[in-house]
Amino acid sequence: MDLRKVIREIQDFPKEGVSFKDITTLLKNPEAYRFAIDKLVEICRPLNADVIACPEARGFVVGAPMAYILGTGVVPVRKPGKLPAETVSQSYGLEYGEDELEIHVDAILPGQRVIIADDLLATGGTALAAAKLVERLGGVVVGFAFISELLPLGGRKLLSDYNVISLVEYEDA
Amino acid sequence: MDLRKVIREIQDFPKEGVSFKDITTLLKNPEAYRFAIDKLVEICRPLNADVIACPEARGFVVGAPMAYILGTGVVPVRKPGKLPAETVSQSYGLEYGEDELEIHVDAILPGQRVIIADDLLATGGTALAAAKLVERLGGVVVGFAFISELLPLGGRKLLSDYNVISLVEYEDA
Repeated sequence: MDLRKVIREIQDFPKEGVSFKDITTLLKNPEAYRFAIDKLVEICRPLNADVIACPEARGFVVGAPMAYILGTGVVPVRKPGKLPAETVSQSYGLEYGEDELEIHVDAILPGQRVIIADDLLATGGTALAAAKLVERLGGVVVGFAFISELLPLGGRKLLSDYNVISLVEYEDA
Repeated sequence: MDLRKVIREIQDFPKEGVSFKDITTLLKNPEAYRFAIDKLVEICRPLNADVIACPEARGFVVGAPMAYILGTGVVPVRKPGKLPAETVSQSYGLEYGEDELEIHVDAILPGQRVIIADDLLATGGTALAAAKLVERLGGVVVGFAFISELLPLGGRKLLSDYNVISLVEYEDA
């Protein structure tokens, strides 16, 4: 299945000049959604992860079914103030500004193998911040799993120390 | 499995007097997460849903694996400005204030059977707003699926026209 055909491109969102890759058209298509998740699971299974960590909010839609299928826990990585217990936080630059991510301090045990799942690899800022949070808790990032990737934004270079998986590569951003 | 034992209660979050039911401790427990999702799927399967709609962000962690297993699409119901294509929006009162939800106008086809999934039924404000959005697109809400429910907040009464499923009932809020 060519997932590119079910991902909608929206011009000038969230700002002019950006061609936004909208996965909601993939998500509402049962065959496409199943195909994408199955494909990521197939590639990620040999990584023997203990945990899938996923940045809010679209990351949850990718990471949660992966965790269910792989029999791991799922750990939300969230914007400040959303997680109710003690957290560590990490600031980062993202495609359209600056932001911060948090994780519960007890979300990951030292030595646990962690896959970070999200819908899209753009600059890699969010992904790298999530990795740093996992590592600050003693977790080992064994891979990143994305549905799609915007090649010109260089996220793969920022994540060059890691194993990066994506299903669809875009030459434009 | 007694899910209550894996849901953490946090006092005075997000405001004083509230005992917040934190499902992140359930999510990171692979057996508990699988049990909760399997239970909701088992109860929801006879409803023959075409779509699982879920309010961001915690709803995604519940609805996405349900959609995967049931072979339906998953439709995000989001805060204003998050969805990139044309939307309809609905304002609502929630437990701790006022807010607005949006759905893509093409997310649901007329006549499609929709389950609305979220982690928690509190006052029911979010859930009812999501139902109204689905119905404005011509969808039929065949059920609500929650992991837990705060009985004193009366959400089930607000949703009395609907089929409401929850796995854990709390006598306090």
